[in-house]
Amino acid sequence: MVPLAIDAMGGDNAPQVVIEGVCDALERFSGIDKLLLVGDRPQIETALQNCRADHRSRIEIEHTDQIVAMDEPPAAAIRSKPKSSIALAVEAVKQGRAGGVISAGHTGAAVASTVLKLRTLPGIERPGIATVFPSPSGCFLLLDAGANVDCKPRHLTQYAVMGEIYAREILNIKKPRIGLINVGDEAGKGNDLSKAAYEEISKLADLNFIGNIEGSALFRGTCDVVVCDGFVGNVILKSCESLAGAFGHFLKKLLVKNPVRQMGAFLC
Amino acid sequence: MVPLAIDAMGGDNAPQVVIEGVCDALERFSGIDKLLLVGDRPQIETALQNCRADHRSRIEIEHTDQIVAMDEPPAAAIRSKPKSSIALAVEAVKQGRAGGVISAGHTGAAVASTVLKLRTLPGIERPGIATVFPSPSGCFLLLDAGANVDCKPRHLTQYAVMGEIYAREILNIKKPRIGLINVGDEAGKGNDLSKAAYEEISKLADLNFIGNIEGSALFRGTCDVVVCDGFVGNVILKSCESLAGAFGHFLKKLLVKNPVRQMGAFLC
Repeated sequence: MVPLAIDAMGGDNAPQVVIEGVCDALERFSGIDKLLLVGDRPQIETALQNCRADHRSRIEIEHTDQIVAMDEPPAAAIRSKPKSSIALAVEAVKQGRAGGVISAGHTGAAVASTVLKLRTLPGIERPGIATVFPSPSGCFLLLDAGANVDCKPRHLTQYAVMGEIYAREILNIKKPRIGLINVGDEAGKGNDLSKAAYEEISKLADLNFIGNIEGSALFRGTCDVVVCDGFVGNVILKSCESLAGAFGHFLKKLLVKNPVRQMGAFLC
Repeated sequence: MVPLAIDAMGGDNAPQVVIEGVCDALERFSGIDKLLLVGDRPQIETALQNCRADHRSRIEIEHTDQIVAMDEPPAAAIRSKPKSSIALAVEAVKQGRAGGVISAGHTGAAVASTVLKLRTLPGIERPGIATVFPSPSGCFLLLDAGANVDCKPRHLTQYAVMGEIYAREILNIKKPRIGLINVGDEAGKGNDLSKAAYEEISKLADLNFIGNIEGSALFRGTCDVVVCDGFVGNVILKSCESLAGAFGHFLKKLLVKNPVRQMGAFLC
């Protein structure tokens, strides 16, 4: 089986955290024959010291000492570092030595590398970042979360199609409900972009398009795939992360005001 | 003193909830001489039954039986109901019988009524909805939260100016920090709209413009006024409300997994 290529140097606390994830995956999924780690061999070897021998034997390393830092402008990074870990990981896919690529690193560099080397699928003009959000009823997929901040209506339509496939194939949802993020749930609401996208997506008869959904419905389990442009999606993702981070504080305030034994009322 | 006009029929559970708010305000702010309630007199009188006599004497009622329902298209509602509670409340401001208007009702109808009858201030082309969010360090103001979903860069600049005044005069923040919501905090990031708005706002020397802020910084207390277009602002507002509503569920799950005595770690 063709392995997945992993950008071992991408993301916070790489390669240590990436290697931990790799070993965890090898432990949990016996169907993985091999993973291709791309990055600085000495650092990877050090991070692999606690890796079990039978896991280690399923890991192949491709060495490079070029790394894209998180604060580099993506275009410049791609130009000046043709052998960066993300670039070589994508190259492995292009050469057929890997079947897909995973990176927790620089989003812009990852998007630029993949689009430049692999192009998009037929009918898809722009890449999208799909993010799985937890919700009380399970989860939902949101895309685009930041790859394409100036969308045309047809890009949103293409996200709806890609999101549907992801939800069906990866999240195992039989007939995913597709929603378009908007300021109101009635047809005809929204800005120029969302009104035009609504028209387009409505025409795709194969899609279970449930229409517009407001931000207020996100965590109510009414929708499996939330379609939005990359600007809005990125702001939703980060605002929700920020609010979740502040919950501890709000809860603390609440607990100071109300003894713990009264928490039941709050939880119901 | 010129009273404030209150749309007594606007919002969920009106007029009961509106009247409760009115009585609460009269109780807490002795400086309020009079409030003008506009709406259905019999319904208002019924809701006022438990109102203290000294509060009741500070309330004036202007009767109308036309009410804009929450699901009416705003333009049609304005045309077909010239004597709706919101229209008459705004008219009272126009005639100088009231100094301002408050409505918890149909946003579109409220915005349309005020713009048509009162116009905007000189230099301001579009109205904006300003919303105060709680945050661990106090609060921040976000605008526009949904009045203007297709913004030009200059509209965002005007929101920055209005937001600054609101934060200074109403929230008592001496030198409010103004931020522009964006997908990255470096200058030059973002979509066409945010890049152009960044340029414009930067030129206002009187403003304490701290540049772009990401969604992830919203609840970190780094910014007092968050400027965004009405589409993005509305989605932020409602997504955060939705997540906060789901918080009880996530907390319950957490408590089932971790005994209450371990909660300290979570709270720190």
